[in-house]
Amino acid sequence: MATMNWAVIMAGGVGERFWPMSRRKRPKQLLPIVGSRTMIQQTVARLAGVVPPSRMLVITNADQAPLIRKQLPRVKHIIAEPVGRNTAPCIAYAAAIIGGRDPNAVMVVVPADSFIPDVDRYRRVVCESLELAGRENVLITIGIQPTSPHTGYGYVQVGERLSDRFWKARRFVEKPDRATAEQFLASGEYRWNAGMFVWSLRAIGEAFQKHQPDMWLDARSLKRAYPKLEKISIDYAIMEKAGNVIVANGDFAWDDVGDWAAVERHGGRVGPEFVSVDSTGCVVAGEPGHIVAAVGVDDLVIVHTRDATLVCRKSDAQRVRELVKKLAAGKKYQKLL
Amino acid sequence: MATMNWAVIMAGGVGERFWPMSRRKRPKQLLPIVGSRTMIQQTVARLAGVVPPSRMLVITNADQAPLIRKQLPRVKHIIAEPVGRNTAPCIAYAAAIIGGRDPNAVMVVVPADSFIPDVDRYRRVVCESLELAGRENVLITIGIQPTSPHTGYGYVQVGERLSDRFWKARRFVEKPDRATAEQFLASGEYRWNAGMFVWSLRAIGEAFQKHQPDMWLDARSLKRAYPKLEKISIDYAIMEKAGNVIVANGDFAWDDVGDWAAVERHGGRVGPEFVSVDSTGCVVAGEPGHIVAAVGVDDLVIVHTRDATLVCRKSDAQRVRELVKKLAAGKKYQKLL
Repeated sequence: MATMNWAVIMAGGVGERFWPMSRRKRPKQLLPIVGSRTMIQQTVARLAGVVPPSRMLVITNADQAPLIRKQLPRVKHIIAEPVGRNTAPCIAYAAAIIGGRDPNAVMVVVPADSFIPDVDRYRRVVCESLELAGRENVLITIGIQPTSPHTGYGYVQVGERLSDRFWKARRFVEKPDRATAEQFLASGEYRWNAGMFVWSLRAIGEAFQKHQPDMWLDARSLKRAYPKLEKISIDYAIMEKAGNVIVANGDFAWDDVGDWAAVERHGGRVGPEFVSVDSTGCVVAGEPGHIVAAVGVDDLVIVHTRDATLVCRKSDAQRVRELVKKLAAGKKYQKLL
Repeated sequence: MATMNWAVIMAGGVGERFWPMSRRKRPKQLLPIVGSRTMIQQTVARLAGVVPPSRMLVITNADQAPLIRKQLPRVKHIIAEPVGRNTAPCIAYAAAIIGGRDPNAVMVVVPADSFIPDVDRYRRVVCESLELAGRENVLITIGIQPTSPHTGYGYVQVGERLSDRFWKARRFVEKPDRATAEQFLASGEYRWNAGMFVWSLRAIGEAFQKHQPDMWLDARSLKRAYPKLEKISIDYAIMEKAGNVIVANGDFAWDDVGDWAAVERHGGRVGPEFVSVDSTGCVVAGEPGHIVAAVGVDDLVIVHTRDATLVCRKSDAQRVRELVKKLAAGKKYQKLL
């Protein structure tokens, strides 16, 4: 029986670190943070060389679904989770929907908001992984070659080499401290676990039945059961426990564009006019038509939107989340979230 | 013959250093930079204890006149200069208009944009000066007790003491360097020359006839001659040359609120909501209803307006002028000036 390739795009992120441009109804993946298309539009375009839009499934939430439908008119399967439950329930739900249409499916699962400029290399890795997953009962994670001792990512250690492209996985490691991350980088044995997976419906089903049997239901039952499911990541629920995990060599540049400072690495985005005197290293974003001006300031993030303006030290870009939490605590700021 | 007191308010300043809030048609004096009323409204209210609004004359330019009429509905004499020519021609023009109505006038001449919180002390100095100028053929400058070795102001050295309130002027000094300003402060003999003058029409007329005879004409002739008059300050044209200059002891706090950093000294202004994480010493201004948020930044000026946002190091607040010059040089930015 021929296998059919599917793509699952997980678009549940709230993107607080891109406030004030990102809002609950328009988080990072729905913004043109890098480039002229939104992150999710870029993700779909990248996958479109491998999987037709008719076999793409976007899993999101009720807040974001309307805008996603607008941004992705060719993608038919856009599903809102009943409630947000982290990636394991989300993947089980996607698998149940795909399983109802195509029991022999092989699927690539990706987040909606990664930045991957080298589309050709990316497609090659995905294709080879889909091919392997169609043949063998394995769970593949695409492991990205680290370029820095990043402490914000999870890592996966590779074991026995199986081919040019694949290793057996040895172990998963959650976000390490700096010293550990440096050891990982130096050893050459560790890869960033970027949340991109490839497996057959059968393989992931067996893994769920073994490690998370409560979650492996048909779509209708799952929808009902969803609110009671544990909020748990696929890494923790399945990947760290399964014995048949394979690491694919993700030999392409990848960035999760975690904050405004990251935007700068990729050339920023079209935004407001910027005029400055004696200022360097600023990341400026906002709506076209507005002007942002700077005098005597360095290394700031300046974001203008219609109802809110952010000024943030670039090295504190991650801390925009703290600001959003502060706003969320104030009744009068709810319309800004 | 009884003398009548008049007030001349000079409102020609362009207020570039308050961009983007200040624009050509709404410079600093027409903004509520400090307090809830605009600078010119505060100036009129301060003088209203000494001179009735019917004998106040505002000299401005065609750009600002419409908004000034709106802001000062009780002031009848609001005159637009044909072109901007600095303070000497401006004062000659005001004197010509007043002279046509009241040849025995005594007048106080002030800029529209000073900040003087102690209204009672201010009125006392103005009243005593008007009284002296009504009696004697003198040109009075109100000299402010310096509180710092400011290098941005002109100074006047006092000579012989005439009374509790008045000295003869010895000499005027343009903006000094730092060391000189420190000597001035230490000596106790120098006062800030704040651009506030008191004299009778007769006394200033004699001084103009002696030192600037081309400028002393009736209002109609002056209006015609105006574009050809020298751009020259009253200090340079008259005060530095006249032998009958008196310094009044301006024993009140005074600030010309020269830039956004100065606003902070006076409690800032009502503006946008400000929410911050780990940020100190910021001066935030803008329109109510907008929110400005800061993360990890110190000592910045952040100003939001509908079409432009400024972020400026507080110690560089004077350099906003450079930015405005840069904008003025760009065709597409004209609507922002």
